[in-house]
Amino acid sequence: MKVVFMHIFKVIFLAGATLFAAGVVGAEADQGPTVMARAADVDAAAAMLRDQALNKNVAYAWLTQLTTRFGARMAGSASERKAAEWAAGSLESMGFDTIKIEPFDLQLWQRGAESAEILSPFPQKLVVTALGGSRATPPEGVDAEATLFATYQEFLDSKVDLKGRIVVVLQPTARTQTGVGYGLNSGSVRSRGPLEAKQRGASAFLMRALGTETHRFAHAGATQFQTKEGIPSLAMSPPDAEAMLRMKVLQDKGEAGPLRIKIVSTPRFLGGGQSQNVIAEFRGTEKPDEIITIGGHLDSWDLGTGAIDDGSGMAITLAAVKTMIDAGKRPRRTIRVVLYGAEEVSQPDNKGLSGAQAYADRHVNPATRVSSETHILTAESDFGADVIYAASMPVASQTDFNARLGKILYPLKVYVDPKPADGGGPDTLPSQRQGVPAMDLRQNGMDYFDTHHTADDVLERIEPAKLDQNVAAWTATLWLVANGDVTFNPQVRK
Amino acid sequence: MKVVFMHIFKVIFLAGATLFAAGVVGAEADQGPTVMARAADVDAAAAMLRDQALNKNVAYAWLTQLTTRFGARMAGSASERKAAEWAAGSLESMGFDTIKIEPFDLQLWQRGAESAEILSPFPQKLVVTALGGSRATPPEGVDAEATLFATYQEFLDSKVDLKGRIVVVLQPTARTQTGVGYGLNSGSVRSRGPLEAKQRGASAFLMRALGTETHRFAHAGATQFQTKEGIPSLAMSPPDAEAMLRMKVLQDKGEAGPLRIKIVSTPRFLGGGQSQNVIAEFRGTEKPDEIITIGGHLDSWDLGTGAIDDGSGMAITLAAVKTMIDAGKRPRRTIRVVLYGAEEVSQPDNKGLSGAQAYADRHVNPATRVSSETHILTAESDFGADVIYAASMPVASQTDFNARLGKILYPLKVYVDPKPADGGGPDTLPSQRQGVPAMDLRQNGMDYFDTHHTADDVLERIEPAKLDQNVAAWTATLWLVANGDVTFNPQVRK
Repeated sequence: MKVVFMHIFKVIFLAGATLFAAGVVGAEADQGPTVMARAADVDAAAAMLRDQALNKNVAYAWLTQLTTRFGARMAGSASERKAAEWAAGSLESMGFDTIKIEPFDLQLWQRGAESAEILSPFPQKLVVTALGGSRATPPEGVDAEATLFATYQEFLDSKVDLKGRIVVVLQPTARTQTGVGYGLNSGSVRSRGPLEAKQRGASAFLMRALGTETHRFAHAGATQFQTKEGIPSLAMSPPDAEAMLRMKVLQDKGEAGPLRIKIVSTPRFLGGGQSQNVIAEFRGTEKPDEIITIGGHLDSWDLGTGAIDDGSGMAITLAAVKTMIDAGKRPRRTIRVVLYGAEEVSQPDNKGLSGAQAYADRHVNPATRVSSETHILTAESDFGADVIYAASMPVASQTDFNARLGKILYPLKVYVDPKPADGGGPDTLPSQRQGVPAMDLRQNGMDYFDTHHTADDVLERIEPAKLDQNVAAWTATLWLVANGDVTFNPQVRK
Repeated sequence: MKVVFMHIFKVIFLAGATLFAAGVVGAEADQGPTVMARAADVDAAAAMLRDQALNKNVAYAWLTQLTTRFGARMAGSASERKAAEWAAGSLESMGFDTIKIEPFDLQLWQRGAESAEILSPFPQKLVVTALGGSRATPPEGVDAEATLFATYQEFLDSKVDLKGRIVVVLQPTARTQTGVGYGLNSGSVRSRGPLEAKQRGASAFLMRALGTETHRFAHAGATQFQTKEGIPSLAMSPPDAEAMLRMKVLQDKGEAGPLRIKIVSTPRFLGGGQSQNVIAEFRGTEKPDEIITIGGHLDSWDLGTGAIDDGSGMAITLAAVKTMIDAGKRPRRTIRVVLYGAEEVSQPDNKGLSGAQAYADRHVNPATRVSSETHILTAESDFGADVIYAASMPVASQTDFNARLGKILYPLKVYVDPKPADGGGPDTLPSQRQGVPAMDLRQNGMDYFDTHHTADDVLERIEPAKLDQNVAAWTATLWLVANGDVTFNPQVRK
């Protein structure tokens, strides 16, 4: 997932921009006995569904199949396509009403061979991986003197001649519950660092991977798409970066000479390809054209098997609907699960989110959409597999909505944040830009960036009971929204 | 470290073989007031040194320098040699009396490119590493149908035709405090599995790495040296093995066809080379020819930086002597720190431990040694960097020795095992075969095989306070042995 978006919006928010385009619609004037009785019924059903979701194991079982059968699901790959076809079949057998696979175009980038080593004065191998969208070295590699910077700002401010040098940025990532530490670095060091280095004449860019852990994994992740410009750009594992910081101390004390580093990285730009969104509906009984979109993204980085990013997000959201299906409870509005393709990769326009954009173009944007349905809420689960600790909703038409939701989520150790949602998940952004309100069911992200985008993003990172807690919170929240009369203020994200 | 030896000796022990060649010498008949008073002084000094060792940070600082400056230290490599030269210099500057570097010959094996992937029916990449001493595939790799076995015994008992197949053994490693779970597998699956598979006509051998963790690291380690015979032999990460077990379940249910796997591994046999032992003495005042050897091994596998295996063992034992030097306390007997070369690698005779053998030949074996000194005790620290929880000594001439030791070690949360030592560390074995008694300061090995022999064996695995607990236990124990009159029964290991 790309917490960079979350960060960017926080910055906009702090700058005073209006996140919520319309004012508060206000509470409904008349909540008579019938409405209140119906609300009580809805709440009781939501609590019942919440409890049925716990210990069902649907999400974990589905995730196990997905990761075992398809492994990594790089955007635009055969693996992503086959996983989409399999997922569509699995949703059909679960009892969803309509399932569609909608293809869209994208540009492909594929990792090649990659290695790096310090040649002198401390010869040793480094654990590295190329940034997605970065350019290749010659087959024999780049071999150059390295200039080490402890922070990104130090690099930006530096007056040192970097011509021909390998720029090494050792800035670490802060461990936070919200992921803001990651967002700060992915939006700067990883996305812009390589081109900043290129502008200063550097021959390659090597950064501390955006991981919060101490294990020796290099974390992948997209940088600006470099078909025509750019320089070889890689991330190294946090322990390698720590070692290099110690070398820098020796350098600064005059106890070690310059570092010479060799890098080999041979990714390829494969040109145009296709990815696809999988869309599955559980149709509403009374208001089938009022749509709530939930889901996760089907693509993953190529190193792990995408269990936490974002197999678990898909598993959680589809299992929430499966809970309703199994309980024979169909809501009044339609819940649509979207498994987005190609969330992870950048594109030549450096925009990314091609699958989510294709969805919004086809189903949300009044100028381009194929139907006249109304999207009343959107949300994505794309922050791993740890427990949900808070819910935040857009401003609701019913003033007591958050209080009702809070009562139902409290037993799951989830509170309702009185502040309106400001995230929603990366794949909801193109819809939010069209005014669709978004909600957040916020997961604990303290450990998310330990394995995110690494070879270690595998099924072993998942605790089934935590997945079920997620499913329970999603099921209960969705029922409240999909089966009541609540409406949310539209909000237009820039 | 090679816990396989520990296991093999346990088997010999259970089979009734005599581990301790001589009978109990018996307590000294007369422990008069002078002897008792001196024992009290020795114990008081041991307790003082124990406390001084805590929070000194000598071991961690040394280990930091070693891993930062030299990274991996493969046996016979330039890195191992340079690390030996640096270590000798560091020991000299610490105040050791005499420092020697003694070279010896060995045969070299060097890892090449390595990768593996499942081609069908579940295409995905595997995280693998070649077993040390194993043969290469052709450059284009081996591509063959795989036969999966849940356990090693299942493979041995199988009547299936394995001609041309890739044999896959998925047997896991039990997590134990003593390491016995590892020893069982390293002595069987890893060391003998490849040749058993070759005898059945297999084209390659792929095993679950001998790790107890769930992270996606492949663990290296030696198999039988295969210069002339053998087949490509690799280990895969535990999560990959778990995924393959799930695929086997689908196969057994008839829901999946045969697995086709491609393996590329291009290690090379480089012929003869040299490694070296580093030997540093702290000479005794009264009985300088009575030698206590301690130490660890300087070589490491090539994937990590050998922080836990066995940088920490060297750091702990040399810091114990440094504690005495810093306190101005010189013992009556000589303490000799040996940093053994080439512990990890197998050799064409499949014996290994070349450095320890070279030491025993030159300094211990009466038929070949260059001096007439007496080795009264040997011990190695080679089981990581977690705390010591038990001490076990060979049978002592003083019946109260273990009780005295227990009093001094108890504040460190270490008990004295009444059973005699049966380990000593792999590099003590050639000396033990010459009758030198060995002691064990047993470390908690519960987590040792999580990162042992992986790329993740780096400084970040080390907790400085735990290293210092080790140093304190070694310092106190050594002082008691080196400054008292205790003698230990000789013991001859087979």
